[in-house]
Amino acid sequence: MEKLIIVKVGGAVLEEEALINDFLDHFTAIPSKKILVHGGGRTATLLSKKLGIETKMVDGRRITDHETLKVVTMVYGGLINKSTVALLQSKGCNALGITGVDMNLISAVKRPVGEIDYGLVGDVTGVNASAFSVLIQAGVVPVLAPITHDGKGLLLNTNADTIASSIAVAMADLYQVSLVYCFEKAGVLADPNDDESVIPHLNFKLYQDLKNEGKIHSGMIPKLDNSFNALKMGVTEVIITSANTLNISKGTHLSL
Amino acid sequence: MEKLIIVKVGGAVLEEEALINDFLDHFTAIPSKKILVHGGGRTATLLSKKLGIETKMVDGRRITDHETLKVVTMVYGGLINKSTVALLQSKGCNALGITGVDMNLISAVKRPVGEIDYGLVGDVTGVNASAFSVLIQAGVVPVLAPITHDGKGLLLNTNADTIASSIAVAMADLYQVSLVYCFEKAGVLADPNDDESVIPHLNFKLYQDLKNEGKIHSGMIPKLDNSFNALKMGVTEVIITSANTLNISKGTHLSL
Repeated sequence: MEKLIIVKVGGAVLEEEALINDFLDHFTAIPSKKILVHGGGRTATLLSKKLGIETKMVDGRRITDHETLKVVTMVYGGLINKSTVALLQSKGCNALGITGVDMNLISAVKRPVGEIDYGLVGDVTGVNASAFSVLIQAGVVPVLAPITHDGKGLLLNTNADTIASSIAVAMADLYQVSLVYCFEKAGVLADPNDDESVIPHLNFKLYQDLKNEGKIHSGMIPKLDNSFNALKMGVTEVIITSANTLNISKGTHLSL
Repeated sequence: MEKLIIVKVGGAVLEEEALINDFLDHFTAIPSKKILVHGGGRTATLLSKKLGIETKMVDGRRITDHETLKVVTMVYGGLINKSTVALLQSKGCNALGITGVDMNLISAVKRPVGEIDYGLVGDVTGVNASAFSVLIQAGVVPVLAPITHDGKGLLLNTNADTIASSIAVAMADLYQVSLVYCFEKAGVLADPNDDESVIPHLNFKLYQDLKNEGKIHSGMIPKLDNSFNALKMGVTEVIITSANTLNISKGTHLSL
């Protein structure tokens, strides 16, 4: 099967002029078929503030009312997505900026109200693998902003890590998929205070042990749970590496 | 040759909840291959105001500084584009929301500074007809926001009427192209004060006569000049009709 690399990068890289060019150079240089998934939370929070809209976060997730949905649609789907695509095009990468709404690429349902009402937030229910394939086989590099829809006309703010792993799992029937999470650190650290302590190989057993010992940073847990789940669902490899170098041979390689 | 209908609609329709659903129903019902080009100026002006950015217009064109470029990228490329695509998807139309930047669909140069410095405004230099064809032949309906790029990473705010006619001309080698400008009136009026006075057929000679007699509203002149130019360049038909009905058999049909 042909290789497909899916790279997730946080807004912190694409929102920082000093970092974005290097990162997109590294991304452009990846020789295989590829997809980029990005965030943009910091800019969304800044724009909300300028517009007098209060930002409410619970466990790192944005509570999304109607006005906040407009902000994230503008920031993720418009400003960050199109600025990134323009830079990639200037580097010779045939990028196409999209959301899960376009070509019905990613369908979702509004998250049911439980203990917390997240508002207009989507839980992914389906990925249109054949539509992704049409684009990829045409030599196009999809660049995804984390917005999905419910199929009834409603846009939904959706976690970008989840979008990346959902696409990875859906494409695993058609491609040999590598899922790469870019990170401000060089990988998963054995000691959070020592940037040199990158764990090169992390299997599920070691992950459980480190988690039980409280050695894995709480913010990493949903990302790693997502990652091991993707491996169980047929994704070939998951790598957590530095956004600065996007070096897939370094960082932390996960295995079951 | 296969038929392709390119519809340009102003922001005033897509920004008005009372109008948007009917318009998108009519658009979805068009049986041939199709492309939608939209504006969104009113929302851009509102957002600029909320952000304390002054809106400067010259002859209906927006002077676009760096902050205004961010606003139009967010509003045209994000909010209006994705909201429209979500509604079209809910109606069974396989829409893909894009700008001229994506897949390098429309390249442009920054307008040279003459008597007026329009700022970060683009003049179209090329349309990637083969990329449009790939999408259309895959059953996708492109929905275009009026943003282009210079190929060096710079986004450019670009007139939506010009984008529509540029695409129409570029696609005329491959398709039998109809270019449809949607309008708040039912067509070109012989008497601007009489909404019933639609001119059903307007040829170039009659247009020149009416223009010389001062009977054509000044705001219509660039649109009609654009339209007659498209006909000269191989577009099969140009129709100016009401956005309310999107009835292509009515309105004003232009001919050389």
